[in-house]
Amino acid sequence: MTRRLESYAAGRWFRADDEGQPLLDAATGAEVARLSSSGLDLDAMVSHGRTVGGPALRALTFHERAGLLKAMAKHLLERKDELYELSYATGATRRDSAVDIDGGIGTVFSIASKGTREMPNDTVYVDGGLEQLGREGTFVGQHVHTSRVGVAVQVNAFNFPVWGFLEKLAPAFVAGVASIVKPAEQTAYVTEAAVRMIVESGLLPEGSLQLLAGSPAGLLDVLTVQDQVAFTGSAHTAGLLRNHPSVLHGGVGLTVEADSLNCSILGPDVGADDPELDLFVGAVVTEMTVKAGQKCTAIRRVIVPRAMRHTVAEAIAARLAKVTVGDPRSESVRMGALVSLDQREEVRKAVQSLRASAEVVFGDPDRVEVVDGDAERGAFISPVLLSAADGAVEPHDVEPFGPVSTIVAYDTVEDAVELAARGRGSLAGSVVTHDPDVARAVVLGLAPWHGRILVLDRAGAAEAAAAGGHGSPLPVLVHGGPGRAGGGEELGGVRGILHHMQRTAIQGSPDMLTAITGRWTRGSQRRADDVHPFRKSLAELRIGDTIASAPRAVTRADIDHFAEFTGDTFYAHTDPEAAAANPLFGGIVAHGYLVVSLAAGLFVDPDPGPVLANFGVDHLRFLTPVKADDTIAVTLTVKQITPRTNAEYGEVRWDAVVANADGEPVATYDVLTLVAKTWP
Amino acid sequence: MTRRLESYAAGRWFRADDEGQPLLDAATGAEVARLSSSGLDLDAMVSHGRTVGGPALRALTFHERAGLLKAMAKHLLERKDELYELSYATGATRRDSAVDIDGGIGTVFSIASKGTREMPNDTVYVDGGLEQLGREGTFVGQHVHTSRVGVAVQVNAFNFPVWGFLEKLAPAFVAGVASIVKPAEQTAYVTEAAVRMIVESGLLPEGSLQLLAGSPAGLLDVLTVQDQVAFTGSAHTAGLLRNHPSVLHGGVGLTVEADSLNCSILGPDVGADDPELDLFVGAVVTEMTVKAGQKCTAIRRVIVPRAMRHTVAEAIAARLAKVTVGDPRSESVRMGALVSLDQREEVRKAVQSLRASAEVVFGDPDRVEVVDGDAERGAFISPVLLSAADGAVEPHDVEPFGPVSTIVAYDTVEDAVELAARGRGSLAGSVVTHDPDVARAVVLGLAPWHGRILVLDRAGAAEAAAAGGHGSPLPVLVHGGPGRAGGGEELGGVRGILHHMQRTAIQGSPDMLTAITGRWTRGSQRRADDVHPFRKSLAELRIGDTIASAPRAVTRADIDHFAEFTGDTFYAHTDPEAAAANPLFGGIVAHGYLVVSLAAGLFVDPDPGPVLANFGVDHLRFLTPVKADDTIAVTLTVKQITPRTNAEYGEVRWDAVVANADGEPVATYDVLTLVAKTWP
Repeated sequence: MTRRLESYAAGRWFRADDEGQPLLDAATGAEVARLSSSGLDLDAMVSHGRTVGGPALRALTFHERAGLLKAMAKHLLERKDELYELSYATGATRRDSAVDIDGGIGTVFSIASKGTREMPNDTVYVDGGLEQLGREGTFVGQHVHTSRVGVAVQVNAFNFPVWGFLEKLAPAFVAGVASIVKPAEQTAYVTEAAVRMIVESGLLPEGSLQLLAGSPAGLLDVLTVQDQVAFTGSAHTAGLLRNHPSVLHGGVGLTVEADSLNCSILGPDVGADDPELDLFVGAVVTEMTVKAGQKCTAIRRVIVPRAMRHTVAEAIAARLAKVTVGDPRSESVRMGALVSLDQREEVRKAVQSLRASAEVVFGDPDRVEVVDGDAERGAFISPVLLSAADGAVEPHDVEPFGPVSTIVAYDTVEDAVELAARGRGSLAGSVVTHDPDVARAVVLGLAPWHGRILVLDRAGAAEAAAAGGHGSPLPVLVHGGPGRAGGGEELGGVRGILHHMQRTAIQGSPDMLTAITGRWTRGSQRRADDVHPFRKSLAELRIGDTIASAPRAVTRADIDHFAEFTGDTFYAHTDPEAAAANPLFGGIVAHGYLVVSLAAGLFVDPDPGPVLANFGVDHLRFLTPVKADDTIAVTLTVKQITPRTNAEYGEVRWDAVVANADGEPVATYDVLTLVAKTWP
Repeated sequence: MTRRLESYAAGRWFRADDEGQPLLDAATGAEVARLSSSGLDLDAMVSHGRTVGGPALRALTFHERAGLLKAMAKHLLERKDELYELSYATGATRRDSAVDIDGGIGTVFSIASKGTREMPNDTVYVDGGLEQLGREGTFVGQHVHTSRVGVAVQVNAFNFPVWGFLEKLAPAFVAGVASIVKPAEQTAYVTEAAVRMIVESGLLPEGSLQLLAGSPAGLLDVLTVQDQVAFTGSAHTAGLLRNHPSVLHGGVGLTVEADSLNCSILGPDVGADDPELDLFVGAVVTEMTVKAGQKCTAIRRVIVPRAMRHTVAEAIAARLAKVTVGDPRSESVRMGALVSLDQREEVRKAVQSLRASAEVVFGDPDRVEVVDGDAERGAFISPVLLSAADGAVEPHDVEPFGPVSTIVAYDTVEDAVELAARGRGSLAGSVVTHDPDVARAVVLGLAPWHGRILVLDRAGAAEAAAAGGHGSPLPVLVHGGPGRAGGGEELGGVRGILHHMQRTAIQGSPDMLTAITGRWTRGSQRRADDVHPFRKSLAELRIGDTIASAPRAVTRADIDHFAEFTGDTFYAHTDPEAAAANPLFGGIVAHGYLVVSLAAGLFVDPDPGPVLANFGVDHLRFLTPVKADDTIAVTLTVKQITPRTNAEYGEVRWDAVVANADGEPVATYDVLTLVAKTWP
């Protein structure tokens, strides 16, 4: 008997008492491992995540969590060869495994980077702008996101045993939510190995990552309102999950990412000699053969102009003829095995269904020449290309989860969009065209039906291919789709992190909002003391620290001089008559840039100190014109402090208000500075 | 027999053949109207929304849709007295009806305003920043939202027959999605009257608003993947909807806003003499009595420090004793009737359940003194205040949908948060405290369990009351909550609009992204011709129009002079030795404000023309220091054009890049200008 896989539960590795179910090598049929979770206490796992892992994560800031993830990704990168070795048994070639293993690790790096660059070094995420809820500004509203206090149960599919769990774990982790990873049975040994590496590293807080290697039966029963389930797999299983009492009535959140009948559309502008034809054919062949077509995002429907149907079919067939099928360990093999013999049976059945309205133009689902492999025990199958009859229903309804695609012909761009929509919602679509008008029409037609759409043309084709093309979810873009694709959404940078958090509208006085969000809220108290805030290090600065400047007159001479010096002789600053005719000014006004330049002169403390640089300005608005001989003064207040984890300084965002002698704001903006953490 | 209510379906008013069910006046028991939709073709309604209303809406921009909504709200405002008159029959006092009718109309104005101010004058909404997907920038990603192409079915609760449908209709309308409004039976006559006013106005495109007055049985059966159901009502009905095959397997989106056991917490800092005690007691009494407590957001659980339990109970009871109950038409009546005798039975049963672990401290659910009303036939009930025993379960589980609240005592702030969480998810919570630390601890503890939290203290109390307090959803803040509250989210300004749209990640070359989004994407073509773009009116300007300036040297003399002139003598611009020690600069650098001032001098065309003003700058980042004698040049490109519907000008957003002689960007930002629509 081979090794029994273990679950990592409630702080220890758990091995089931029974022998478990054998998991077989997809290419050789040899037993790889045994799987069982019999006797595992699921209630204790959930409780451990809620009471140990979650609190440990939530004691850290977003940046600290991201930092741990980055360290974890580095650790996996060092040991990735072990994962590659194991991955062959899933039927994956080395190229397939790169998508899974390096793709998964890269996703963790990307999410960690987004968590650091686009989230505060804090535990509360502020969402959108301040809403004034009364005329005086004494009662305001602000949306925030806070961490859910339950667990994130992640049910993964067999096709990406590494990427699949990492793309769910990383956003949950940054969000401060403990994960329970449940890999698919067939390829659980790869996930188990990766989780073991992470646990052995000791990098992540105990309880933030648990592994359920085995059956999840009963798991949903113990979930409650703050828990979430993220499921990737079949629409059928998704339906069962949706129907569970914990989801129907218990308030358990459920996100579904299901296989879908993704399409690629060849634009009507593309001729036989255009480079776009080659890009299109290449994309289809790639999507059919990578992971032997076992990708939820793979192209199942090849939608082409009627006149191009045969050209496209021949070109695809010609390339497929060169695809060698066999043991993925062999260097001469281009496409490995399906994950199991059962899976091959499923694919064969699907092809049989498709044949009701489509003819096979390449390949035989029952026969394939196997290179360097055991044709008897390995789950090998030939790529199969079909071409559908007009009005065919099956290509839009039957999903062969293998190296199978069907060509469908269209007459007009509207037809093409309508055919795509018959898939009833997809994860990914693509359109290959060099015509921007075609791109706009097709993309906006497809968009309501898709989570992601790739536009492919000669410009950017090399970088598009490097980014993985049609079938590759990217960590910075959302993954998921409406309808048949499950209606869920994952990844997309910070978006995927926020899906694990609760958005709440907070109403109160500005001072209360400042206390709750940790950010200075306009209208709340300003703190001015004898020390200029530019003389305070990051460690000394406090939210609300303020410098209120002395006033300064802006003379006509200042305006004239600034116009001459900068060359900005726009008539509103230089020509009294023309300026008087301007509907907004009614006379000479100071340049906006003059106002903010003078304001800097008013608030700056010039000597060397902890403030190292002004690196930007946000949301600058000129609200009231400054006329000659108006007086201005500026108030600068510490709004947000973001220490950088790996630098000797951090970012300080200042609220700036320039007001005139009547106290009217003439300009408001945020000033962004770098400030040293300490200053001698 | 009274008037038979009609549905507005597929472009005509439909009256059922049968007599329908009688709807009774809550206060008098008299029949108000008859309700039936027997014979109504629901399939035709859905089809009409999809093929007539949706396309008509999507032919308009967000601003145009918002403009129609605003006109519609004005129309309703003019005829609101008719609605107030009808509303008495629901048991609502005039004050109650204000929340419903003026509140509903105000919500439409607010959503229309957000749609105009925060969305583009276009049909595609761009979400978040550009994502560079390759090193060269030839392949990029951008998220967009597009309108779903199905219908929005809106199932409303009986308590807000006007606000309830308007708060769902307005966001769907701006999103470009046709609505089918299904009012609750008991109060459908008010909704029917409001919809009739809208239809008679002829303001909205045909098919964009339909009314189903009667039974929705069978409606979900005909919905498909692009359709959505937004439901407000009981958790029980929500469970049935979640269990419908169209939702489980058909990809129909479902948003639920269900009643919840909302709490208000009195901070441990509040003493008997603090103004916060009064605010707290006032909030509880208001929430118990407005709409006779028939609000999904009403305070059901009054969570107070143990020591304050009796003080609070006495103060609430004293105020409740002054609440007159009776026919809502009477001016001496403060609280009207429940919506029906059945509803009163439900409330009495709930009070009975609560009594298992709580004692009544005010009121008798079976007896009430009725002022100016028919005590026999009117659904009157007394406010009832209970006080729970320690460890009581029922107050956190049983919802009396009427003027009933239960006091629960706590010992520590952690206890209070834990008690609140026992409600398993709420729409709205509140905390009354004058201590910012208490506010932060309680709010962050409650946040994962709540959609909205109000912090009430003496500061801002008047404006908080004017904004409606604890129980009032506001159009600019999200409404909805996790768990028991249904897990849905509505309103929240643009957020509520986007819930009706599909988010899609678009990948492609910058030129393709520009064509698809209608916004210039960094990296795509710039168009420079003989005419300076400042000489082009809004009608003439095109996305991509560019002015690439001549270069200009920035001398040490310029920097010295700027420092002296503006007073910004920060050492990095003035002191060579100190500047050399700066870790980021290593020598004298030009002021960032000098760089952008000189850039303006380089790109401005000075003579009077269509460009009226520069009203702001966004996302300014200083990327590379400009040293003495560096040369800079600026490229300014039209990025986005937003014509204003009600002005002679529009907004033009320009992409600005200042580069040095090596072509390195030294500053990037967006310049915001107002440009006349035409120029002689």
